[in-house]
Amino acid sequence: MSVTVPKGFRAAGCKAGIKPSGKPDLCLIVRDAAPPGVIAGSAVVLTTNQVLGAPVIVAKVQRAAMLKSNAALRAVVVNAGNSNAATGEAGVRAAEATMAAVAGLVGCEPDAVLPSSTGVIGRVLPVRKILEALPALHAALGRGPDADTAAAGAIMTTDLVPKAATQSVEIDGRLVSFGAIAKGSGMIAPRLDSASGPPTPSATMLAFVTTDAAISTVDLQRLVDDVAAGTFNRISVDNHPSCSDTLCVLASGLAEPASGPGGAKGAKPMAPIARGSAGARLFADALHTVCEDLAKQIVVDGEGATRVFHVSVAGARTAGEAEAMAREIVNSPLVKCAIHGRDPNWGRIVTAAGNAGVRFDPTETSLSIGPVEVYRAGVPIGEALTDPRLAEAMAGKEVAVRLTVGGGPGSGWMMGCDLSAQYVSINADYTT
Amino acid sequence: MSVTVPKGFRAAGCKAGIKPSGKPDLCLIVRDAAPPGVIAGSAVVLTTNQVLGAPVIVAKVQRAAMLKSNAALRAVVVNAGNSNAATGEAGVRAAEATMAAVAGLVGCEPDAVLPSSTGVIGRVLPVRKILEALPALHAALGRGPDADTAAAGAIMTTDLVPKAATQSVEIDGRLVSFGAIAKGSGMIAPRLDSASGPPTPSATMLAFVTTDAAISTVDLQRLVDDVAAGTFNRISVDNHPSCSDTLCVLASGLAEPASGPGGAKGAKPMAPIARGSAGARLFADALHTVCEDLAKQIVVDGEGATRVFHVSVAGARTAGEAEAMAREIVNSPLVKCAIHGRDPNWGRIVTAAGNAGVRFDPTETSLSIGPVEVYRAGVPIGEALTDPRLAEAMAGKEVAVRLTVGGGPGSGWMMGCDLSAQYVSINADYTT
Repeated sequence: MSVTVPKGFRAAGCKAGIKPSGKPDLCLIVRDAAPPGVIAGSAVVLTTNQVLGAPVIVAKVQRAAMLKSNAALRAVVVNAGNSNAATGEAGVRAAEATMAAVAGLVGCEPDAVLPSSTGVIGRVLPVRKILEALPALHAALGRGPDADTAAAGAIMTTDLVPKAATQSVEIDGRLVSFGAIAKGSGMIAPRLDSASGPPTPSATMLAFVTTDAAISTVDLQRLVDDVAAGTFNRISVDNHPSCSDTLCVLASGLAEPASGPGGAKGAKPMAPIARGSAGARLFADALHTVCEDLAKQIVVDGEGATRVFHVSVAGARTAGEAEAMAREIVNSPLVKCAIHGRDPNWGRIVTAAGNAGVRFDPTETSLSIGPVEVYRAGVPIGEALTDPRLAEAMAGKEVAVRLTVGGGPGSGWMMGCDLSAQYVSINADYTT
Repeated sequence: MSVTVPKGFRAAGCKAGIKPSGKPDLCLIVRDAAPPGVIAGSAVVLTTNQVLGAPVIVAKVQRAAMLKSNAALRAVVVNAGNSNAATGEAGVRAAEATMAAVAGLVGCEPDAVLPSSTGVIGRVLPVRKILEALPALHAALGRGPDADTAAAGAIMTTDLVPKAATQSVEIDGRLVSFGAIAKGSGMIAPRLDSASGPPTPSATMLAFVTTDAAISTVDLQRLVDDVAAGTFNRISVDNHPSCSDTLCVLASGLAEPASGPGGAKGAKPMAPIARGSAGARLFADALHTVCEDLAKQIVVDGEGATRVFHVSVAGARTAGEAEAMAREIVNSPLVKCAIHGRDPNWGRIVTAAGNAGVRFDPTETSLSIGPVEVYRAGVPIGEALTDPRLAEAMAGKEVAVRLTVGGGPGSGWMMGCDLSAQYVSINADYTT
């Protein structure tokens, strides 16, 4: 279950013939038109790569216009198998043709349709195949497990498994649900931007979240900027942000009164979540949980990954410095190979941190792997290497690495996966 | 032939029992004491990693003192198999004991002996084995091919082949020779510092260059800072600068008059090369050639490498921005896998450049692989992919990638190697 769990959403997936394999490759998610008095909103965060897929070029313009008018998206159309990136003006026209076709079927403005593409870079999008497939795809829109499964399957590329998450929380007397789908699994190191602030420092990761909360586009965008920075931007498979990375959140405003004592009375639409309110915090926390869940699923299914590792850094001067060190560690090929080989090679971890462009004092630095401290105040703990708990920690599906670099207030984390021969095989042969 | 080609140097290598394999692991290079009137100099550039091997900690202090007094090193003692890094105060004491022992044998101050170590991180250096081996190693010091071969072999770790280079140039009527040895081959992405300027953005690469030019320590350090930035700092095997990276240049001042019409007359010692002179430029060029040769040998012998690729970026606003883009390209696992698979996947190359934190306009961006332009002004050149010259370029031992990102004056380059399953195998099992 995923994107059609919240009230007001339908989804479908189909085979449009874009992928040479003939697997599903076209997904449509549609938000029902909001009845009078219902507040719908949407938010998009996009890759910070300087080379943008045509859908991202279009989406940046859409987002700016939506923020200006506080308007909301009605649909998302996603294809896999071709990223429509580095395709010049022809690519933008292909994206716009897709938007227009969906708009005609849904009954909305083309600008209310977010286009999104993932797959091979630099090939002209087979837009005719997409336009031919859309009417039947639109007719197939539905709610429930089958619709959700079809949607999640149609956005996959090298993913081994579909990715979905759901969450629900009571906010202001309403039962607010979240549903989400995502895809990984290579070109993953999201550095999604922030529409409301300066760009923060991504892969082709695509993630689409639906919710039936009532929240305006402007307020939702602020929250999504923060949530993306704390979730998707904390993962890396291969330290190569894609030209297509996209997270889109759609809010229908159709959440129903929660049953029980706290339930809202009457049939009035949900009032929009107010900025800074307790409800906004509950909403942000639930959205964070959904996005963190998806982000972790992407790393676990990273190309060739056999295990993941979570690096937390504490004691830095700032959170940014801590994150920079954690990022350098999860992206070091030497660390990733050690994690693959179950080798508690803490020297690689500490020296990776030392390459982050952040000053710290090794004599105030300590490192633990799982429950075992291996390095303390700049000196190895010799007996640690024979501690059976260390071997156990290295053999787990999720390895926890904790680095402390002093007594500062800055902390941060990143999650990565190991580097295997399978990753090389996938990427030495596959043209993305 | 290498370090003993220039006048005034002797070298030797031996098995001290540091490597579990029992292979050669201790190297000594000694400069003869300078006769009256002869100007000797030395220069050292060291890793910018925040976590430093004990020899690097010691070398930073040595360098500062040498620059202050314009003094010169007499010897370099190098062990492989143990990097004496992350070993705390005990590591520094071990390095100092080694220096003192060599000083006693050579007849110089301990501070005139540069220690250098490469190998496993975080293990106490078996200093007793080194002290026991040194007298025989010192007694074995010699000149000629056998001495050079022994020296180059004793500094290897995962290197498949020893690395050496020589060069000669006539400067101020003297025949100036250069000899050099180096080792790679993993944890390679040198970002060596600069003693005379701000630190620039390093692996365990070790390189030791000898020359019989006469040049003061202060003047030599300035030239070596520049040469390192343009050579060793331009290579990357795995984007993980080591805690031990070291380049050391020793100048004996003993160059003899060149024969022929331009030859210097008489037996007076060579006058020191003057800063900014034509001779200084000739010297710098020759040193650059030697260092570039060694740097390329390191990449070619990068762990698991089957081919190398040279990325040049032009048209950027600044040289720094061009270099940042080239660095992002050579370090992208996706690009490295494509190079391994002979896949002309230019989309990965262009999007890697897009992640360098440098603003550029994709519509002004073009890319060539070998002689074939594959992407021009933001649009793919469709017929390029079927050009047989492209397949030929991708199959070569050295692939040339040229990216143009606009009309700016900034250009830069980096050299990297492909990522193979062999790299994973080496690093998932080997504890560095």
